[in-house]
Amino acid sequence: MNDLEMISMIKGLGIDMIHAAKSGHPGIVLGAAPMLYVLYKNHMNINTSDSNWANRDRFVMSAGHGSALLYATLFMAGFGLTVDDLKKFRRYPSKVPGHPEVGVTPGVDCSTGPLGQGLANAVGMALGERILQEKYRIDATRSLVDYHVYALVGDGDLMEGISYEAASLAGTLKLSNLTVLYDSNNMTLDGPTVKTFKEDIKARFEAMGWETILIKDGNKIGDIDRALNRARKSPFPTLIEVKTRIGDGSLLEGQNTVHGKDLTEEDILQLKAKLGLPNYGFYVNELSAASFRSYIANRVNQKYLNWSKDYQDYVNKICYGDATTANYLLQNQFSFNLFDVGFLFKPHTKQALRDTNTFFLKEMQKRIPLLVGGSADLGSSTMTYLKDLGDIEANQFRGGNIWFGVREHAMGAILNGMALVNLRPYGSTFLSFSDYIRPAMRMSAMMRLPVTYIFTHDSISVGQDGPTHQPVEQLAALRAIPNMYVYRPADAKELLGCWHCILNSNQNPSSLVLARQEVEVLEESSEKQTVKGGYILHPETEPLELILVATGSEVPVAKNLLFEFSKSGMNGIRLVSMPCLDLFLKQPPEYQEEILPKGVFTVVIEAGVYAGWEAVIPNPKYMIGLSRFGVSGTKDEVLTAMNFSYEKIRDRLTRLIQ
Amino acid sequence: MNDLEMISMIKGLGIDMIHAAKSGHPGIVLGAAPMLYVLYKNHMNINTSDSNWANRDRFVMSAGHGSALLYATLFMAGFGLTVDDLKKFRRYPSKVPGHPEVGVTPGVDCSTGPLGQGLANAVGMALGERILQEKYRIDATRSLVDYHVYALVGDGDLMEGISYEAASLAGTLKLSNLTVLYDSNNMTLDGPTVKTFKEDIKARFEAMGWETILIKDGNKIGDIDRALNRARKSPFPTLIEVKTRIGDGSLLEGQNTVHGKDLTEEDILQLKAKLGLPNYGFYVNELSAASFRSYIANRVNQKYLNWSKDYQDYVNKICYGDATTANYLLQNQFSFNLFDVGFLFKPHTKQALRDTNTFFLKEMQKRIPLLVGGSADLGSSTMTYLKDLGDIEANQFRGGNIWFGVREHAMGAILNGMALVNLRPYGSTFLSFSDYIRPAMRMSAMMRLPVTYIFTHDSISVGQDGPTHQPVEQLAALRAIPNMYVYRPADAKELLGCWHCILNSNQNPSSLVLARQEVEVLEESSEKQTVKGGYILHPETEPLELILVATGSEVPVAKNLLFEFSKSGMNGIRLVSMPCLDLFLKQPPEYQEEILPKGVFTVVIEAGVYAGWEAVIPNPKYMIGLSRFGVSGTKDEVLTAMNFSYEKIRDRLTRLIQ
Repeated sequence: MNDLEMISMIKGLGIDMIHAAKSGHPGIVLGAAPMLYVLYKNHMNINTSDSNWANRDRFVMSAGHGSALLYATLFMAGFGLTVDDLKKFRRYPSKVPGHPEVGVTPGVDCSTGPLGQGLANAVGMALGERILQEKYRIDATRSLVDYHVYALVGDGDLMEGISYEAASLAGTLKLSNLTVLYDSNNMTLDGPTVKTFKEDIKARFEAMGWETILIKDGNKIGDIDRALNRARKSPFPTLIEVKTRIGDGSLLEGQNTVHGKDLTEEDILQLKAKLGLPNYGFYVNELSAASFRSYIANRVNQKYLNWSKDYQDYVNKICYGDATTANYLLQNQFSFNLFDVGFLFKPHTKQALRDTNTFFLKEMQKRIPLLVGGSADLGSSTMTYLKDLGDIEANQFRGGNIWFGVREHAMGAILNGMALVNLRPYGSTFLSFSDYIRPAMRMSAMMRLPVTYIFTHDSISVGQDGPTHQPVEQLAALRAIPNMYVYRPADAKELLGCWHCILNSNQNPSSLVLARQEVEVLEESSEKQTVKGGYILHPETEPLELILVATGSEVPVAKNLLFEFSKSGMNGIRLVSMPCLDLFLKQPPEYQEEILPKGVFTVVIEAGVYAGWEAVIPNPKYMIGLSRFGVSGTKDEVLTAMNFSYEKIRDRLTRLIQ
Repeated sequence: MNDLEMISMIKGLGIDMIHAAKSGHPGIVLGAAPMLYVLYKNHMNINTSDSNWANRDRFVMSAGHGSALLYATLFMAGFGLTVDDLKKFRRYPSKVPGHPEVGVTPGVDCSTGPLGQGLANAVGMALGERILQEKYRIDATRSLVDYHVYALVGDGDLMEGISYEAASLAGTLKLSNLTVLYDSNNMTLDGPTVKTFKEDIKARFEAMGWETILIKDGNKIGDIDRALNRARKSPFPTLIEVKTRIGDGSLLEGQNTVHGKDLTEEDILQLKAKLGLPNYGFYVNELSAASFRSYIANRVNQKYLNWSKDYQDYVNKICYGDATTANYLLQNQFSFNLFDVGFLFKPHTKQALRDTNTFFLKEMQKRIPLLVGGSADLGSSTMTYLKDLGDIEANQFRGGNIWFGVREHAMGAILNGMALVNLRPYGSTFLSFSDYIRPAMRMSAMMRLPVTYIFTHDSISVGQDGPTHQPVEQLAALRAIPNMYVYRPADAKELLGCWHCILNSNQNPSSLVLARQEVEVLEESSEKQTVKGGYILHPETEPLELILVATGSEVPVAKNLLFEFSKSGMNGIRLVSMPCLDLFLKQPPEYQEEILPKGVFTVVIEAGVYAGWEAVIPNPKYMIGLSRFGVSGTKDEVLTAMNFSYEKIRDRLTRLIQ
């Protein structure tokens, strides 16, 4: 096996894939092929026959447009892709989509595409590794978990704020198991970085506690190799800046136009001549490829066998937790019956749900080692900070509390990275700041990761902090994300039911939305019914005339309305609590019809915009909600100003049913 | 006037305001009062009798929870607040809301609250100043516009990714007219920054091309004063790190608990004793306050008079543009009849709307000096890069193109800052990345700023880049933001209509959503009708049986369906084009009823999720849309896989009407 031949073949395959698809990103293929080749050849601990090996090294192609390069490299490394697979680049269906998608391509550890996310995902994987290392300790010096996380980033990744947030936290936490290769070519899609990005990257990363290494020529694979060795031993996260020429060898080399457009036939012809490749598509010297594969296998084989033995010993000895827990390391299917724990809530007791939630989080962390989380510097307001459970800090990865800092966006992507290494992570902030996390939440939903977002201060009732802190459109916007389950429980029992659903959702992220103000445990609420998403909390006592649907803190309001109206003789009112609209809409039609029979006058009460309720009410007229931003004042002043005090809601309802 | 007395009074007022409201943030009031005092005393060029003076210096309280400190300072500076106003802190209605709100309090230049936004807004104001300076030049060395922008940030602001993005761009563009005071107290809401934020801030900002100054003791106002002088002269943006003690003087000094909670009576008592203040609420030495006010007035008066004369000369001479243009400097009311220009579009010609949009942008920039914009490194894909109009770069602020870099979030907030100084800015990226900008878009909507977001690649039709690049829930999520107008034109004529509406909206941000693929200019479309948001594009020719509502590139699809169905004898189909649902829902009920008569079978066709259409269709069943993430493949493969090809849509419609 000849390194240059291998790199040329990888480049050739990447270029041919893009040419076959008539779309893709040749610039990074030609610029970054050497580094990816060296990484897989000499550093990545992987086993292509067990591509999900729990203790494998992870690689995140944060510059997701480098997918063709990644696929060509994975093919060479022997991850079970064929040349025929590669020919279907960017077609549907295929194993090689336009940007890397976890679960679609063997060897792809993370879906990427929107810039910056991947670096933050890698930070999450590295943090996850540190946490799991403590949880799966064999003895004081050894653990079942001991892997390295690599990411490849481009200029675009490093310009994104999320990558700064994640890198800053990685530096603070001294994540020494993280190495980032920076494909530094002074060029982005639109043009030279001199127009947009004149930073001293080395100084910036060192200021954040990173080790940095500069490789002046990205074609010198010996230098890259030595840098990767040094990075693996560094006590800090490491950034290796590799100077490359975008589209190296193409007629468009060094120009922004080579970033994202299929090369011309003429260009491919001259390029292949330069690379010493034959003049036809998808050339592979099978002998060289085979020797590359066996080289990697030889390097990793003993490590893999040792680990398998350690794992078996661990399961036999049950060093920590139980065999089930050990099993979670291998796969992310998880189940836990929270109802069996026997939590009891006395009706009429009052507590803010964020406080009840603290109780649940503590109890769950005691029982579920994989559950861990923290807050974006609002733990003392969202009440997700768990006293007595310890803090996760640099050199100290046992503990129940992660301090994400004021970094909502990175928090989301870090949670994704943690879920990708089979933890069950959660993170918290105020509901109005869910907007900051949204791009990461979309990736949670797209990768179907069991991440839980805890959002408190869930309505204009937060009052005095004013409109910036008062969510209005957030519930609707979160419900609009496919695969995202939005929970808004009315009391402690419903919260228990929500957590039961969340713990047993292996394929969906969840948003758990909690009010700031105190709520009473309702007589009629039900944790068991909560799992259906919506249920009759208070039935009508005379023929059904009106259904009130409410969520969260609007449920007690609706209940009071029902009682007040019944005093004046209206007994045909049914109250439906809807802690999770998404779950309700997944129930059999007969159940939905039983709870919300068609043709019955139905009104929704929720402190938010209309959008999303069209499945329940035939017309926005029948929504008692909010359609403009809030104001700053005491809770009562705000509710009155926004037409959402009890009296105003009663008046709105009265007008509706007259 | 005694500096220490003034600072003590400001602190006292802030603490009393918080105590009266029983809520607020004393930590920053006590820590940062000296810097705000010195800033207003010796540096801010303001005129309290003309608080909107176009050439005033700007101040952004990026740490928006420092509102009480800001209001107390503005009161002292004479901005027309009374002690009675201050007593209503955080009440509704009042002039002093929980976080600063532009338009509510005289002297507040920007609404803030969500961390990080304010710094990026300040960068936008500083960039805006540089651009306006060129547009309103008097001669080679003088301009009508020549002000400095100040911001105060805390640790939380600097941890947010958006602040990094904005600071990096400010460094690249050498925005020497920007000075940021950093209230550096090693503490955030949840605890000490050592847990979350161990950066060498000085090194990081220098790496980004900033000048940095360290003040070791935030109570030394002489040091702060000298630093502010140096910053104003620096050829670079300047960060002044001021070491302070959070809650300085309180019993909780230095602790995170003083960040966001009203102080106890006992604490206030001892604090006021320390500060030499009398032991009652809202103490003001009117004589000192008056001398502070006249000190500022004396410092600024001549500058203000000179500027007024320059302005009058400018209007008389009409150096650049016309008197109307000069007037825009003074107020942000703007109108322009785009229909008068006489653009004509021949039916059946084909062009991608993003290309037609390039044409409009160029034509509009020629006519409207205040219109300027750019892209987050996707200008060559969104086609908002305007060749021949020049680039805005460091030391070069004439030009039609801003290079924001891969910084969507900062772009949004920078556009807000530019709009706050009366420009009419726009920025572009792909629709799926609108999620990245959302927190800034919420602030555009809350401040009612005329910012235009241009989003291309508006549906799964983008194909090969796969699900991360394919919007599905974004249209719904954008429509859910109050005050945000979402436009999705079907062809060039509708695009013209959309731009006409956008140019004449002074109180609303807009999202202009464009398809990537080519579209034909439709025979029946109408720019004039577009301003109503929705209109009958093709009427029924027999009694009305079915209404098809479509937007953007689904309009031609719907039109083909109509023709196909009419061939088989169904002539009662009406096609309604709905380029702006928000505008349509603002029309008189009679118009809405005329276009979409109640009780008629109506189907919406749009490449997105249901949410938001409940105002038009009684049931999500009648939406032909998308409810899951896309896939990577050619356009046709994707449309088929997602049940959204022409044939699949026809089948879905056929099943619906059977």
